[in-house]
Amino acid sequence: MTEAAAKSNKPPRTAITPTREENFPEWYQNVIKAADMAENAPVRGCMIVKPYGYAMWENIQQGLDRLIKAEGVENAYFPLLIPLSYFAKEAEHIDGFAKECAVVTHHRLSMNEKNELAPDKDSVLAEPLVIRPTSETIIGESMHNWVQSYRDLPLKLNQWCNIMRWEMRPRLFLRTAEFLWQEGHNAFATAEEADKDARQMLGVYQDMFENYLAIPAIPGAKTPEERFPGAVETYTLEAFMQDGKALQGCTSHFLGQTFAKSCDIKYLSQDGTQKLAWTTSWGFTSRTVGAAIMVHADDDGMVMPPKLAPYQVAILPIVRDDADTGKILAFCDDLQRKLAANGVTARTDKTEARSSDKMWTAIKKGVPVRVEVGAREIAEGKLTFTRRDLGKDGKKTATVDEFLSSVGGVLEQMHKDMLERARAKMKAMVTDIASLKEMRDFFAAEKTGGVRLDYSLIKGSEEFEAIKKEFSVTSRCLPFSDKGQKVIVAKAY
Amino acid sequence: MTEAAAKSNKPPRTAITPTREENFPEWYQNVIKAADMAENAPVRGCMIVKPYGYAMWENIQQGLDRLIKAEGVENAYFPLLIPLSYFAKEAEHIDGFAKECAVVTHHRLSMNEKNELAPDKDSVLAEPLVIRPTSETIIGESMHNWVQSYRDLPLKLNQWCNIMRWEMRPRLFLRTAEFLWQEGHNAFATAEEADKDARQMLGVYQDMFENYLAIPAIPGAKTPEERFPGAVETYTLEAFMQDGKALQGCTSHFLGQTFAKSCDIKYLSQDGTQKLAWTTSWGFTSRTVGAAIMVHADDDGMVMPPKLAPYQVAILPIVRDDADTGKILAFCDDLQRKLAANGVTARTDKTEARSSDKMWTAIKKGVPVRVEVGAREIAEGKLTFTRRDLGKDGKKTATVDEFLSSVGGVLEQMHKDMLERARAKMKAMVTDIASLKEMRDFFAAEKTGGVRLDYSLIKGSEEFEAIKKEFSVTSRCLPFSDKGQKVIVAKAY
Repeated sequence: MTEAAAKSNKPPRTAITPTREENFPEWYQNVIKAADMAENAPVRGCMIVKPYGYAMWENIQQGLDRLIKAEGVENAYFPLLIPLSYFAKEAEHIDGFAKECAVVTHHRLSMNEKNELAPDKDSVLAEPLVIRPTSETIIGESMHNWVQSYRDLPLKLNQWCNIMRWEMRPRLFLRTAEFLWQEGHNAFATAEEADKDARQMLGVYQDMFENYLAIPAIPGAKTPEERFPGAVETYTLEAFMQDGKALQGCTSHFLGQTFAKSCDIKYLSQDGTQKLAWTTSWGFTSRTVGAAIMVHADDDGMVMPPKLAPYQVAILPIVRDDADTGKILAFCDDLQRKLAANGVTARTDKTEARSSDKMWTAIKKGVPVRVEVGAREIAEGKLTFTRRDLGKDGKKTATVDEFLSSVGGVLEQMHKDMLERARAKMKAMVTDIASLKEMRDFFAAEKTGGVRLDYSLIKGSEEFEAIKKEFSVTSRCLPFSDKGQKVIVAKAY
Repeated sequence: MTEAAAKSNKPPRTAITPTREENFPEWYQNVIKAADMAENAPVRGCMIVKPYGYAMWENIQQGLDRLIKAEGVENAYFPLLIPLSYFAKEAEHIDGFAKECAVVTHHRLSMNEKNELAPDKDSVLAEPLVIRPTSETIIGESMHNWVQSYRDLPLKLNQWCNIMRWEMRPRLFLRTAEFLWQEGHNAFATAEEADKDARQMLGVYQDMFENYLAIPAIPGAKTPEERFPGAVETYTLEAFMQDGKALQGCTSHFLGQTFAKSCDIKYLSQDGTQKLAWTTSWGFTSRTVGAAIMVHADDDGMVMPPKLAPYQVAILPIVRDDADTGKILAFCDDLQRKLAANGVTARTDKTEARSSDKMWTAIKKGVPVRVEVGAREIAEGKLTFTRRDLGKDGKKTATVDEFLSSVGGVLEQMHKDMLERARAKMKAMVTDIASLKEMRDFFAAEKTGGVRLDYSLIKGSEEFEAIKKEFSVTSRCLPFSDKGQKVIVAKAY
């Protein structure tokens, strides 16, 4: 090989190419691929969530499920298929009703005249069925049946399920035709309770974002144009990704009496009269996995938030002499067991890969802490471990006992550092401005992030509508911290 | 009211009417209704799993998920919709291919010429999509992509999801168009490993049946006629319900190379040649909730297996004087916290219902243990608690500390007793016979349960085919304990 060829074959300096700087969308796809989290399915717009990506979602589910149940919400399961007539009812009430749905029209396959498998013409459904794009209407029907008196309120229901919305520009985790989520649906006797609940559930989501995902987010209300169809208020968590685009993390809606009216959810009040209930709905989807990637991952791949990592410690056996294999693997198994006893999840890389490849696999998967175990480490009784988010600077040496007693704290500190780093980035991404002219200049200059300005400046403004179109930006939210006086405008996922 | 009227208004002696004896199918529906576990959905053949029923399913899921992961299986998620062509491929291979499927043909709703919401004619899919009735084909496609060399095997995947099969005679939990399940799909390098795996996963299910559901079951192989289409062996757990009908609890299939061939799952073996993999699949559904009802419930309603009960202890505040309410509820809350600290789940009935209604609610829901807390109990420091499965004979008195320290053991004993009682019933339901004549006589006499006889007596027998048709019975399994020599024949759910 010539020297020139050797140079051109030099591995890139980062594990992921292109880098964030070079091409953020492609970097995103490649981080997912390198971490083996998900891939596109043969069905257009759908994804296959691979074990490593699904394990993270399972951890999100478990954490969030606990938080939701602590609010007195009970899980249930409602049908996947919703009769078309339910949507017709909703469509009457709601202008912005989403119509991109998967529609079931037949209930049998059979061989057609060409001897090909096809939908059986004799199995056409009397009424087409729609795969749920959300379940307000079908859960509303149950609430109509289940709520009789004020004693039945509040009624708080949640389901974990799959959802389908036909997406024209799908992207792994962020926007897929089918996705996984939880949808909560609560009913109350009064408007005050319902609005308070919608804010309370947003608070639950913020807990999940900050204390599990390590993602700082701005809680606020959507402007009327950006509300969920039929909602009186839509509350949202807006996060900023490393490329400066905003991402709606999740939403919680105060639905007023819109669905109580269309589904006829009435209760006998304590004063003996029939009253309409007030409802909320709130959802948290698998797109948060995508948000975690775009907030935390770097040019070497994923960085898993420690509390949601499929495993928190990667144990890497370093075998230099085959005669040591048994001893080293036994030591690794023992270490894994001891970590488990300390409440820390770990996995030993028992593949036949080279040591450096094992290290790079752990880096690309973003395992929070990796620890090397070779014959020397065992002989000396000392381990070298590295925090994923600190790179080479995160390397430390400790005795086995020191490692076991400190690793919980290391993970805790890593979570805090990730959250603080992301918070600093987010702050730098929101620029305060004082006029629409400044807004136009900001987006024309392709500056990173979004702007914050007085809400009154954009309300009903034609110039704002022009800027929205020209730069593909939207108003993200009216942050609670600004008491509805300010609005954040940004490009968004 | 006259004495006669008073008599005719006398409440029935059982909480559930009709009783098991009087009308088993109706009793079953009414147990579900009285326990508030599920109800029929507005969509034909589908069900709504209500919070109390869903909580039991969640406990089953959590327990089974742990057992499955302990076998080295990883969870993932594959798409709900499967392209029609995948089924065509399968149909070529498999005669008994099930064709009752929900078919998606459109991806948009719009207003038609009559201004009604309808599937948009311009949104017809190029290829119809089928809602998964099972995922062998789509997971097989991924296995084809993911398996390259012997190093990638075994590959063990599982998903928890919803499934759809158009059912003509739906019944809550037992047979619904949409149901919830887990489906495992494993691939191996050799036939031996795959067959061993199929048996191993059946063992995992038996663990769940006996040690969680408290349902004894007969593990065995299906006869060739009863196998899953395409399977070389279908292993099954057969249980007997209180009405004497059998129920297939779950199945585990050794698929040979059927799906490896149709999906082209190949690996580079250690000897450097390309070889076809060997696969298994194994599924466990929400119908087991129905099985638990039909095995354990009695004429007063549900009896929850203690390890899967949504809550194990019902705390019933008995308020005779409103002035005591605060004190009693505080005591109940404290008791609930102390039970939780002991790993026992409890719920306090804080409704305004009368004391006797609270008791009957707990009975009908089958809460394993109920405990009464009134002013007297608090004053005396003694609690009265009752085991659901023992009726009035299960009533005991204990100090609070005694109760707290003994309740775990009480629940453990209740589990054992339920399993033993069900085992005794099951044994009584299988009658050994020696001829087809005896089989005919048995079913003609409408005896309870099924028969066990030499498999050679039914193999290829026309008389057996006649009996099957006449009495709607099927061969349930060749029990492992009889080494394939005997077969069990019964009516089944």
